[in-house]
Amino acid sequence: MSISLDQSPTSRCPFSVTSRPESPVTYAVWAPYAQALTLFLDGTHHEMSRGEHGWWHADEPQRAGARYGFLIDGEGPYPDPRSPSQPDGVHGLSRVVDHKRFAWTDARWQAPPLASAVIYELHVGTFSDDGTFRGAIARLGELADLGVTHVELMPLAEFPGTRGWGYDGVDLFAPHHFYGEPDDLKALVDACHACGLAVVLDVVYNHFGPSGNYLGKFGPYFTSRYTTPWGDAVNLDGAGSAEDRQFLCDNAVMWLRDYHFDGLRIDAVHAFIDNSALPFLEQLSARAAQLEAVLGRHLVLIAESDLNDPRVIRSREAGGYGVHAQWSDDFHHALHSVLTGERSGYYEDFGTLAHLATAFTQPFVYAGIYSAHRSRVHGRAVRDLPGWRFVVSTQNHDQVGNRARGDRLVHDLSPGRARIAAALLLCSPYVPMLFQGEEWGASTPFQYFTDHEAALGRLVSDGRRREFEAFGWDPAQVPDPQAPDSYARSRLRWRERDEEDHAELLDWYRRLIALRRTTPALRDGDLSGIRVSVDEGERHFVVWRGDIMVACSVASHVSRVPAPEWAELLIASDDAVHLGSGVIVLPPDSIAIVRVLPDNGGLDA
Amino acid sequence: MSISLDQSPTSRCPFSVTSRPESPVTYAVWAPYAQALTLFLDGTHHEMSRGEHGWWHADEPQRAGARYGFLIDGEGPYPDPRSPSQPDGVHGLSRVVDHKRFAWTDARWQAPPLASAVIYELHVGTFSDDGTFRGAIARLGELADLGVTHVELMPLAEFPGTRGWGYDGVDLFAPHHFYGEPDDLKALVDACHACGLAVVLDVVYNHFGPSGNYLGKFGPYFTSRYTTPWGDAVNLDGAGSAEDRQFLCDNAVMWLRDYHFDGLRIDAVHAFIDNSALPFLEQLSARAAQLEAVLGRHLVLIAESDLNDPRVIRSREAGGYGVHAQWSDDFHHALHSVLTGERSGYYEDFGTLAHLATAFTQPFVYAGIYSAHRSRVHGRAVRDLPGWRFVVSTQNHDQVGNRARGDRLVHDLSPGRARIAAALLLCSPYVPMLFQGEEWGASTPFQYFTDHEAALGRLVSDGRRREFEAFGWDPAQVPDPQAPDSYARSRLRWRERDEEDHAELLDWYRRLIALRRTTPALRDGDLSGIRVSVDEGERHFVVWRGDIMVACSVASHVSRVPAPEWAELLIASDDAVHLGSGVIVLPPDSIAIVRVLPDNGGLDA
Repeated sequence: MSISLDQSPTSRCPFSVTSRPESPVTYAVWAPYAQALTLFLDGTHHEMSRGEHGWWHADEPQRAGARYGFLIDGEGPYPDPRSPSQPDGVHGLSRVVDHKRFAWTDARWQAPPLASAVIYELHVGTFSDDGTFRGAIARLGELADLGVTHVELMPLAEFPGTRGWGYDGVDLFAPHHFYGEPDDLKALVDACHACGLAVVLDVVYNHFGPSGNYLGKFGPYFTSRYTTPWGDAVNLDGAGSAEDRQFLCDNAVMWLRDYHFDGLRIDAVHAFIDNSALPFLEQLSARAAQLEAVLGRHLVLIAESDLNDPRVIRSREAGGYGVHAQWSDDFHHALHSVLTGERSGYYEDFGTLAHLATAFTQPFVYAGIYSAHRSRVHGRAVRDLPGWRFVVSTQNHDQVGNRARGDRLVHDLSPGRARIAAALLLCSPYVPMLFQGEEWGASTPFQYFTDHEAALGRLVSDGRRREFEAFGWDPAQVPDPQAPDSYARSRLRWRERDEEDHAELLDWYRRLIALRRTTPALRDGDLSGIRVSVDEGERHFVVWRGDIMVACSVASHVSRVPAPEWAELLIASDDAVHLGSGVIVLPPDSIAIVRVLPDNGGLDA
Repeated sequence: MSISLDQSPTSRCPFSVTSRPESPVTYAVWAPYAQALTLFLDGTHHEMSRGEHGWWHADEPQRAGARYGFLIDGEGPYPDPRSPSQPDGVHGLSRVVDHKRFAWTDARWQAPPLASAVIYELHVGTFSDDGTFRGAIARLGELADLGVTHVELMPLAEFPGTRGWGYDGVDLFAPHHFYGEPDDLKALVDACHACGLAVVLDVVYNHFGPSGNYLGKFGPYFTSRYTTPWGDAVNLDGAGSAEDRQFLCDNAVMWLRDYHFDGLRIDAVHAFIDNSALPFLEQLSARAAQLEAVLGRHLVLIAESDLNDPRVIRSREAGGYGVHAQWSDDFHHALHSVLTGERSGYYEDFGTLAHLATAFTQPFVYAGIYSAHRSRVHGRAVRDLPGWRFVVSTQNHDQVGNRARGDRLVHDLSPGRARIAAALLLCSPYVPMLFQGEEWGASTPFQYFTDHEAALGRLVSDGRRREFEAFGWDPAQVPDPQAPDSYARSRLRWRERDEEDHAELLDWYRRLIALRRTTPALRDGDLSGIRVSVDEGERHFVVWRGDIMVACSVASHVSRVPAPEWAELLIASDDAVHLGSGVIVLPPDSIAIVRVLPDNGGLDA
């Protein structure tokens, strides 16, 4: 290992790495370009003194609850880039938080291994009736009962307004004030642990929101050398990048240490443009590994990556970045396009049963081959990593919410196909992730919603409308992200899970998760042992994993799929599924999971 | 290994990879956006037909010497992006070359290993009186006599005008017409091989020249998502990048296969911005490794890299890019700043004997520590690679030519220090590289020279003047790059090497190279065995490599450096150097290379 984590400054350059104390007791802020910094604290101004490495200090002691901001060369006050709380939103003053105060009850908590995980992605604002941290607590027992092991919270960092997915965050250290107090978030994490649920937080380090982002006034957090879909890239390899990277690493440490999160889901790592010898992701994973040792708790990093590049999750010793797992959207796209028949956008690269079969045997369908959608060669083969290094889903906030009307997969499928989707997900060799309400086929959509100030809000509304108009949508049919209704419509209606159709689907998910948990062949993550057979014409598809055979038909006629003579039907999506002599009979749009028995049906035993 | 070199297209997308035949017999060009392509061949227009993957074809047979170009949607004709010859320069028509015609005499040639190399960088236009390929041939014997093993030619690809360093190339497949015909270049390479000299070509894949660059009219060779010091980056990871990368790889193959080059020096790989799962450099090195097997000749890739990142040269199996060696400027900077006392620009990160000592024990002085000049943490430690994976110099085209007046190191140093520079270079654990004329301390500078058209030329002249004015130079003292004199002044004067001072320095280089060649401890590349001691106050510095001790003083007084009792003086830069009892006596600015003998002086033997 040749990582130098000790990035000691060799000079007094204002861009050098932090001289801020680990647990600040007085006020400090990094502003290497500034001529004068003023602390505005509880209504009083205090001139700050310039220290080393571009850091400014004020001798005032930090007291929990104090409200403050910084004036830069007389302008401001602006919130602290490391503000732990923004009770009045992104433009308001920061507030001091004492992270030592909360009475944790999870002293003996350890998260289960990712290899055994079933992740549940949830959005705090729409998950419960209250749309708050405290509101979410009431539902945790149901998630544990379902068989979920890891809850993944969509981003919480303070974002503009009161409604939003969270990817517009600007105060990375402050939980969104509308969801509750920092202690309420700690209560949610603590309650998860009490229910046996690990908690992963979605963090966005590749871009910042378009409003309330004052970081650029403080220092070179961004670079115009590289652009991303969200504008200037975060500065990971230019002048001042040591501080920026430290800022992001410290943020990760805060969530893991002070809020007891068990891991982080790192948004869109493909938007990190970083030519440095120690890539930021590798620095972050090394920092997390150190922290794991220090805290004595299992920690996990999951990357959202559109690179199809195994380097993201290869070990650092093997030249990788050392992240534990990454999302793989190819599984989703292969499955979605087969079940819905959609072929536009990125689905043009998918659509056949062969694509779906490939998605079962290799995490990246595009692993060094030409992608028509991208107009370039995409990805790289994964040869030596187990399946649990990849997180897959049939739906998630993006795949649902980025549709014009936020419709869920279940809204567009027959009940049979909805069950197929669930079964293929939960029989996959990867870590399955559910999206809130998926388990009962929630009738509520998950729409794109925002709460920006007037001018920006109009831009967002117009942009969204135009985006879908270009795809042939009637603009009147595209919900306005700024409309409070788009948010309200997206809130889960928990009562509906007791209605018959929903309850049946919920039972199906529950049984599939239980089967996965109790069936070693479904959970061993062994990609090399998987066999797949596809009949494109007959529209059926079989996956073999050890002694388990998953047979699925998307035909409109009854299919007869060859099967071993001795077999046992474990679970089927349709009462009409049955085993015949050397055959599985599958009605249209159905799936069966079968255990193959020794030749004589195990009668010798 | 998980490289997919077979980037087979899976669709008929116009950006997909080439459908051009390996050895074209008819005309073809890639122009995915065009509506109509016309071949303009020897004065006649021929409509081309659109084939697969954005390639256009005309059925006319290619005949050596034919002159041609392409009209895109009626505009043009423009030269072929893959033009093998541009007899009238960058704006003229292309000319067909038959690469099978040349009568090679090097059938049994094999290049020596890079581990044993002494490289000699030369610029064809100023190396000989003629400034041509043929002109260079006459001097090859002298290089071989000096002990050079590898000649490195500065870039040859067609660039605007008649005078230039070559980094403004735009027709990557065409040797610059002013230097001679393609066959003249082949004659030069053939003559090198006849003299026992390997030949490496400097290729520029990270940017194109500002004039005569018509590639953007043909296809998406560039991207505005990333910027480099030279403008838009070459498109290595966006739509169309498969073709662009193929274009560059094919170029490398052409030089190695058709011109018999033994290797390539890849310019400024730090300016490749490439987020793809198979980085371009890795693709290129894999392609070169394949070609090595196919041709049955040793091939070598050397990267110029400012990343201080060992990933560039780590093996592909170990997560690296598989390049054989890379330049390391830290050695130069450490040595230059100690010998000249310069501290401006990048020299601010260097200047002590301790920096120089570090440069002898690790290839990157900046290996994960904070660089004040860069205002960021820079580089990464190299722990497991031999010294010969790094190429170092005391001067090269950039370090000389990017100075305001192109003065060589020897022009600014006492004769003693010039000898110290040479000896430290040739006793380093790295591959030493000389810059043309360095060996006799040429009186001629190597200035920046260009030959751009009027308007661009004025911009270049003004830019250069302003650049150095900012550093406090009198603009009148900064040679005008556009002035023919700047070129003429930079031409080597071979006769002067027989003058006394020059001849003495030449003899010093010759003896040092011979000593390196015959002394295993100086050439074993073993970094782990090197010991260094520094006396910053007394201004002396000792390097131990096996039984060899290199003792050097940059003091203004006579130094007495502790030494073993039994030792033998192998070579010294000054007649006043002598061994005393347990001491080496060094006059001001001198260096001695000593062999340590067994305790009794070897009398037992």
